[in-house]
Amino acid sequence: MDIEMSETVAAVSNVRDAEFPRIHADLRVTFRVKAPTAQSVQVAGGDGLGPGPFVMVRDEEGVWTATTPPVVPGFHYYWLEVDGVAVNDPSSQTYMGYGRPTSGVEVPEPGVDYYDAQDVPHGEVRSHWYFSRLTGKWRQATVYTPPGYDERIEVRYPVLYLQHGAGEDETGWVRQGRANLILDNLIAAGKALPMVVVMDCGYTAPIKLPPGAPFSQAIQKSIESFEAFVISELVPMIDAAYRTVADREHRALAGLSMGGMQALHVGLRHLDTFATIGAFSGVPFEELDPQTAFGGVFSDPEAFNRKVRLLWLSNGTAETRFVERVQRFREILGRLGITHEVYESPGTAHEWQTWRRSLHVFAPRLFRW
Amino acid sequence: MDIEMSETVAAVSNVRDAEFPRIHADLRVTFRVKAPTAQSVQVAGGDGLGPGPFVMVRDEEGVWTATTPPVVPGFHYYWLEVDGVAVNDPSSQTYMGYGRPTSGVEVPEPGVDYYDAQDVPHGEVRSHWYFSRLTGKWRQATVYTPPGYDERIEVRYPVLYLQHGAGEDETGWVRQGRANLILDNLIAAGKALPMVVVMDCGYTAPIKLPPGAPFSQAIQKSIESFEAFVISELVPMIDAAYRTVADREHRALAGLSMGGMQALHVGLRHLDTFATIGAFSGVPFEELDPQTAFGGVFSDPEAFNRKVRLLWLSNGTAETRFVERVQRFREILGRLGITHEVYESPGTAHEWQTWRRSLHVFAPRLFRW
Repeated sequence: MDIEMSETVAAVSNVRDAEFPRIHADLRVTFRVKAPTAQSVQVAGGDGLGPGPFVMVRDEEGVWTATTPPVVPGFHYYWLEVDGVAVNDPSSQTYMGYGRPTSGVEVPEPGVDYYDAQDVPHGEVRSHWYFSRLTGKWRQATVYTPPGYDERIEVRYPVLYLQHGAGEDETGWVRQGRANLILDNLIAAGKALPMVVVMDCGYTAPIKLPPGAPFSQAIQKSIESFEAFVISELVPMIDAAYRTVADREHRALAGLSMGGMQALHVGLRHLDTFATIGAFSGVPFEELDPQTAFGGVFSDPEAFNRKVRLLWLSNGTAETRFVERVQRFREILGRLGITHEVYESPGTAHEWQTWRRSLHVFAPRLFRW
Repeated sequence: MDIEMSETVAAVSNVRDAEFPRIHADLRVTFRVKAPTAQSVQVAGGDGLGPGPFVMVRDEEGVWTATTPPVVPGFHYYWLEVDGVAVNDPSSQTYMGYGRPTSGVEVPEPGVDYYDAQDVPHGEVRSHWYFSRLTGKWRQATVYTPPGYDERIEVRYPVLYLQHGAGEDETGWVRQGRANLILDNLIAAGKALPMVVVMDCGYTAPIKLPPGAPFSQAIQKSIESFEAFVISELVPMIDAAYRTVADREHRALAGLSMGGMQALHVGLRHLDTFATIGAFSGVPFEELDPQTAFGGVFSDPEAFNRKVRLLWLSNGTAETRFVERVQRFREILGRLGITHEVYESPGTAHEWQTWRRSLHVFAPRLFRW
């Protein structure tokens, strides 16, 4: 179970001073946890770590270790199963995923630094408290303000509304996605325009489903309740609290997975509010009727193409079932003559590395009209 | 194990839609977790839940339940022990405590709303990225800007630097302490002046101690490395990035536990930078020599009293050993004729409720000269 410490590095997603998980040069990942009284421990997780779970082996002091095969770069959710109970790794920071705080491991992508903190001006990430009448609750929007926002007080900015996926929340795009660093770097390089990015929680109603109801029903419910919230509360609140350019040409709505479905549902039905829509790995579950889908917006493709500045779709090539759904949606758009752009992230699954890359390609396309 | 759902409420510290932990009207707390394959599960935690651990009882479906006796109000860290392994409760949000993400349960204090979100103007909580040359790392300061900061661009603000305790980080004062809401409410009531509050991480060097070294040695190391960081990096960075009044009269330094010791160590040795110092449940480990302690600042009490605007000490009456240390420090100050103010939080332990109350009493005393 010994591993060469000098040939491996502690993951940056670890808690302060924690030595494990460790990343090997060939992108294998070694996990370790002390659990002297446990009978069995294994590492389990999402798509990104490969076909687990990875059974951990105990040494004589009760320290359990497992090493994965080389993994795809990026951020991967994972957890431990201690005697069959799914728990977090105490060595990892937690990230809201799967509806609860979840461990994560950041595996570097060799030669890639667009989502690293670099020596460039940095925007701020603000937690903005406001009361939502629709939900009857105080909420906190996460708001990225670009470098210089506080100083250039005569400048007004376009706004990208950017949504997380199912089981995540308003912290996901910064903590897992590093959206702020991606924007900092793009803006510093002159590749993206300075913009405000609003990342709020996509859940605007309690999700209580009857036992046995399919997961897609929860997603559908969240998509529908989100619409009124965005149009009647979120956008007006942001336009009042920040120096925005408050028109459709300077608003984009995008999201990943469930957030992508929300972006399509809300954006396409409210083209007077948003001129740009991005769906990362998120398209409708159902076959759509071009005459009625999204309020009938596809029924007149020429009018649609005149009005919409950008309809942008992406997916990772390793997403399995999501690839097919995105492909089918693209085929329908193509058949109808609906102008759209696409991006495919090579080799990545339904994971944050797909969405970091998507944002990195999408953001430079925004607001240049 | 059945409990009356209608006579209990889900803790606000739970993850979205989680029904447990639940708080009873008499402030008992019921914890519940599904762990069908575990052999034993119990709830353990800090001082606040009372003399645990609380053994959980399994039902036939593998759901484990335990109820505490009535507990002291406030925020209490806790964790589960599954077959002897300390893990987080998947139903709870996690909070950085004990050097790792830790579960927490918020127990309401009847009739008390000074740390609740109320219908008043709210400040923003900003995550401010900057590079630290001393540590060689990017850091994120948490910065509270008061309501109106973005609009009243001609106004400059005093600054309270506010530090967390051992094992916590720059997120603690907002997430566990609700510092932003306490300030929002005080400012709205005209009880505190609008101020910027800077909450950064108190760890500015890796803490690597030889095996068996006492915990106090880690604390001492963090206190010393923090001094150069505050004076040469943090304060200049904040004065450059925010509209502060950049003089000693308009800077206060305070903290809790380890952060209180840091405030005394740094503040008392740098009275040209800070005119106000607050130590919440945090005083030196060692008996101090009045002639040499803190750079000899107590050797001329008259000069000290002329120069220092406020030296403020607090503790909870249920803190056991901390009470004695604070008392001893106060006796020394009294004997020397060093002017200082004190606050004692009735019935609270070495816990966040002591520090919320401390901030609530301390903040109104600031910058009124």
